[in-house]
Amino acid sequence: MFGISFIGAGNVTWHLAPALEAAGYPVGEIAARNANNAAEIIRHLYDARIVDSLDFSRSRANIFIIAVPDDIVPEIAQNAAFPPDAIVCHTSGTLPLTVLKRFPKRGVFYPLQTFTKGRPLDLSAVPFCIEAADAGTEKQLSTLARSVSRSVHLMDSEQRKALHLGAVFAGNFTNHLLALSKRIAEENNLAFDLLKPLVAETVAKALAAQDPATVQTGPAVRRDEQTIKRHLQALRKHALWRKIYRLLTESIQADLPR
Amino acid sequence: MFGISFIGAGNVTWHLAPALEAAGYPVGEIAARNANNAAEIIRHLYDARIVDSLDFSRSRANIFIIAVPDDIVPEIAQNAAFPPDAIVCHTSGTLPLTVLKRFPKRGVFYPLQTFTKGRPLDLSAVPFCIEAADAGTEKQLSTLARSVSRSVHLMDSEQRKALHLGAVFAGNFTNHLLALSKRIAEENNLAFDLLKPLVAETVAKALAAQDPATVQTGPAVRRDEQTIKRHLQALRKHALWRKIYRLLTESIQADLPR
Repeated sequence: MFGISFIGAGNVTWHLAPALEAAGYPVGEIAARNANNAAEIIRHLYDARIVDSLDFSRSRANIFIIAVPDDIVPEIAQNAAFPPDAIVCHTSGTLPLTVLKRFPKRGVFYPLQTFTKGRPLDLSAVPFCIEAADAGTEKQLSTLARSVSRSVHLMDSEQRKALHLGAVFAGNFTNHLLALSKRIAEENNLAFDLLKPLVAETVAKALAAQDPATVQTGPAVRRDEQTIKRHLQALRKHALWRKIYRLLTESIQADLPR
Repeated sequence: MFGISFIGAGNVTWHLAPALEAAGYPVGEIAARNANNAAEIIRHLYDARIVDSLDFSRSRANIFIIAVPDDIVPEIAQNAAFPPDAIVCHTSGTLPLTVLKRFPKRGVFYPLQTFTKGRPLDLSAVPFCIEAADAGTEKQLSTLARSVSRSVHLMDSEQRKALHLGAVFAGNFTNHLLALSKRIAEENNLAFDLLKPLVAETVAKALAAQDPATVQTGPAVRRDEQTIKRHLQALRKHALWRKIYRLLTESIQADLPR
């Protein structure tokens, strides 16, 4: 059985630390620049303590999970000290494994999900993407992931980066389109609520389809130039939204038969 | 009690005709260019018949719902004949009410949803957008809508057009982003399934938020230029996807504090 410590007390640690402890992996330390964040998390843990140093050389944990913003990982990798045999991993979608090259037992433990503190989440369906420098570490991180999820996948840094890019399109950009649709509705004194059943059904249909492209609807895929013209006209005061409309219409039509 | 007839045997009629009949409005005729489509629908109806003429002057129905692609509605409005007192309405999000100006009791009966033949759908949550040329017609169409939905809204043609535009962003464009994310994943030998839990959670979170903009995540909102650069580099073979990435990143950042 491993003991685990976390560096970082953000959304990922908020979800992972209690789940892994409940699965049988006691959490030792949580290192955080913001002790309040860490305090919130250890309330859900059995015996964890907050530390403000990166010197873990005397820690009893044997897996260290670095769950901090991407741009801080290199600095932490540079400055932290871990016990000689410890596994050190990060949780980033984009950073390569080599960012941890100082540590012989290095790995990646990337849960592909959007985490929000305080929002319940079914971890068992979350894909965990595992990479490691050696077979033993790979096995230990896979076992750790399988203790909370039934979706555990080995992949290299290139694949993980591609998956993260896909996640930006499927997650971040989708969220932004919803934000824009809310503003379009509200500029016309219409509640965003009116669009919600459509969003729910569109996404349910896309995820149930063999390929979302096969269930594409709307003026672009119908080549309904009249409606497209009316929509661009309605967007005349919003140059950026107009560009988005044009470009996504072009992209939908790019794969249509002529 | 009204009798209803439909012009058009597509996805909208497939869902509306049986639902309205079940709510107590007998369906008389279904006019269709494709008799097979109409045949599928009348199997779910009590006593409807398929017609191939637009001459409804001797029909016993008193509400006629034109549910055909937008570009055909004007032609149908020009050529169809209805009983003198009949209500004639279309189901389009973008066409104005005036496209039916030949008919004194004209209206719009626009269900804001993506309809797919054969796919079960909870109509009771679907917003119905009602417009009419006179108060009596408005009342009758509202009553009709309320027989199947608890979300019935009066709005004029301008508002409906704006809502439809919002629906293109929230529905059609969202679906397209999911299609692109699938292709990005599969180009790297990764299954689209890996992205599905993220999509489900992103959308659930966006719809539960006060405003999706407040739960925006990802490299753009973090101004994580390193990751953005890596992503653009990964998209170097796809000029159009690269443009989409740039433009949506710009749009997310447009409203951030400097």
